[in-house]
Amino acid sequence: MHFRIDAQDGKARACTLTTAHSTIQTPVFMPVGTVGSVKALDALDLQSHLDPSIILGNTYHLYLRPGDEVVAELGGLHGFTKFPRSFLTDSGGFQAFSLSDNVKIEEDGITFRSHLDGSPHHFTPQKVLDIQYNLGSDIMMILDDLVALPATHQRIRESIERTTRWAERSIEYHRRKQEEGVGTEQNIFAIIQGGTDPAFRKISAEELCALDFDGFAIGGLSVGEASQEMYDTVEWTTTFMPKDKPRYLMGVGTPEDLVENVERGVDMFDCVMPTRNARNGTLFTSFGKITIKGARFTTDEGPIDPACDCMVCRTYSRAYLRHLFRAKELTYFRLATIHNLYYYLQLMKEMRAAIHEGRFGEFKREFYRKRLQQS
Amino acid sequence: MHFRIDAQDGKARACTLTTAHSTIQTPVFMPVGTVGSVKALDALDLQSHLDPSIILGNTYHLYLRPGDEVVAELGGLHGFTKFPRSFLTDSGGFQAFSLSDNVKIEEDGITFRSHLDGSPHHFTPQKVLDIQYNLGSDIMMILDDLVALPATHQRIRESIERTTRWAERSIEYHRRKQEEGVGTEQNIFAIIQGGTDPAFRKISAEELCALDFDGFAIGGLSVGEASQEMYDTVEWTTTFMPKDKPRYLMGVGTPEDLVENVERGVDMFDCVMPTRNARNGTLFTSFGKITIKGARFTTDEGPIDPACDCMVCRTYSRAYLRHLFRAKELTYFRLATIHNLYYYLQLMKEMRAAIHEGRFGEFKREFYRKRLQQS
Repeated sequence: MHFRIDAQDGKARACTLTTAHSTIQTPVFMPVGTVGSVKALDALDLQSHLDPSIILGNTYHLYLRPGDEVVAELGGLHGFTKFPRSFLTDSGGFQAFSLSDNVKIEEDGITFRSHLDGSPHHFTPQKVLDIQYNLGSDIMMILDDLVALPATHQRIRESIERTTRWAERSIEYHRRKQEEGVGTEQNIFAIIQGGTDPAFRKISAEELCALDFDGFAIGGLSVGEASQEMYDTVEWTTTFMPKDKPRYLMGVGTPEDLVENVERGVDMFDCVMPTRNARNGTLFTSFGKITIKGARFTTDEGPIDPACDCMVCRTYSRAYLRHLFRAKELTYFRLATIHNLYYYLQLMKEMRAAIHEGRFGEFKREFYRKRLQQS
Repeated sequence: MHFRIDAQDGKARACTLTTAHSTIQTPVFMPVGTVGSVKALDALDLQSHLDPSIILGNTYHLYLRPGDEVVAELGGLHGFTKFPRSFLTDSGGFQAFSLSDNVKIEEDGITFRSHLDGSPHHFTPQKVLDIQYNLGSDIMMILDDLVALPATHQRIRESIERTTRWAERSIEYHRRKQEEGVGTEQNIFAIIQGGTDPAFRKISAEELCALDFDGFAIGGLSVGEASQEMYDTVEWTTTFMPKDKPRYLMGVGTPEDLVENVERGVDMFDCVMPTRNARNGTLFTSFGKITIKGARFTTDEGPIDPACDCMVCRTYSRAYLRHLFRAKELTYFRLATIHNLYYYLQLMKEMRAAIHEGRFGEFKREFYRKRLQQS
């Protein structure tokens, strides 16, 4: 992976990452394609209506179904889904914790039962990389030891220590595999843990950033803490992260979260929020969120957001979308998803432009000002 | 509406219908867009991937939600849905019978309760036209008195007699409305009833075809009778229908049904089969139906149908579609719907070409021959 900082404005960065499958301009938002499709969209929708340079796939889901070996046989995620640009895959650890039953963490890895059929499975730092070699993702995340908050000091300490040991095993395994010709075009990111505790974050960041990873993620945030706590933790943690490698804040977040964390030096984001909220009837606009089912939209001929030039806003009325939502029409889900993702991707482009032009502060003031008005 | 017969081969006809919104080449299949969207698709999908010249909307559904007056305020079905070509709307009678509660038929119309909220409603021959004026459809169907089969001879007689009386009221009302400047670009079709009884079909056809309608439909078939009974009834009924007006067989059917009934002189069809079957995992191909969830497709890199050049067959593998279906991904429903409708529309085009070239018999033999092979 080639990484270059194109511009900086305060701590905010505009960078370019190049993988085997695409050139990624940051700050970047990665739409979530859990089981091999961004929910409700296909690869041609992505290309025609959104043009993302990278999307995310979930290792846990793809491992269970259709199985990473099936994906490998069909040409990896690129061949299977026909999305030709970059994929980032997570380690599967987070889903194993949150979706499966009977999770047991031991020194060599985690044991869990599938949420689909109850079958037993075991993930080790090596195993989740083997799965990701089969998936053929451009950026692989390593297995980390997650902590459900609130947790004792002792448990958090154990978590960051184990996360470091697993990171050491992961990078050693990956570099050895690459020497054997496996995953030579795949990049590997470590995940900094430590909750919202500055001391633990510092330890975790310093230990992991000393290792030969291609990039670093901040994990364990956006799990219910106050927004300001998240922003403070990111601000603190980034001071221990190398400038010459990409920084990825996992599972974040609202449009406000994206602006605040780009300001604090984060390059990459992913979140189910735009896609999941779309399906629940919440649409993002330059002036804040709207709930499309509202009776006030019954005969509203206007687009979701007059300032948006996505396919949906150029074509359909709020009245039509409200009707499709109320009638639970499948058509609704796709149109709402396209709009919300377009909003997110556009927001990132605008931030990048502002960083390039040294007016990020101004951009941020304008972003919040528009939200105080209502359309 | 302008109507012209372009070619004939036996009883099979290739015609051209021109409405205010499109030129329709027959035989034609009309995708069903129940509540204002062909399920899982939007208007741009129709244009880009299928190019239908006419689709169907359901009056009962649109009347209840969002309400025909709301649709009128947003520019009728064309303005509301942004599908710019022709719409045919049914009378609402069939859905009132099949979906609602407490249906009561009386001489002036039918009374029923909404399946959505239990509210009471009353449809008369005039009322369902008023609704369709609001919807702005290009072809309106009149209210008919439906019979749930099996029924007594007496009940069927009552049904066809009342259907004729309602037809008289409908055509009188419509021509009067047109003189007042309402629905001047809208066409009106009557519906021949009579079950599978030749004598009743003859009476119903002769009585209705004596009236000044723009076209005639054959209703009350595809309700559980044997295929051959349907074909015989259509063959018999068409002999009493005018040659110079379009013939529409409602709610039909399988690909085989389309071929058999085109051969018997039908011009227009609609059916939920391609769209509903798509969502249930049944896909149509030149060699018959396949069930995409089958384990034999797990690593099948081929398209649904090697003979199909739809967007889905040009892009995605059976393995990917099977995976999306099993994972219940929204993406699946749209892709399967596009393929199945493409198959239906392509079949109609092929029949039209065969009629033009005087080789419909040969086309039909080949159609059945391919189905005896398996891919």
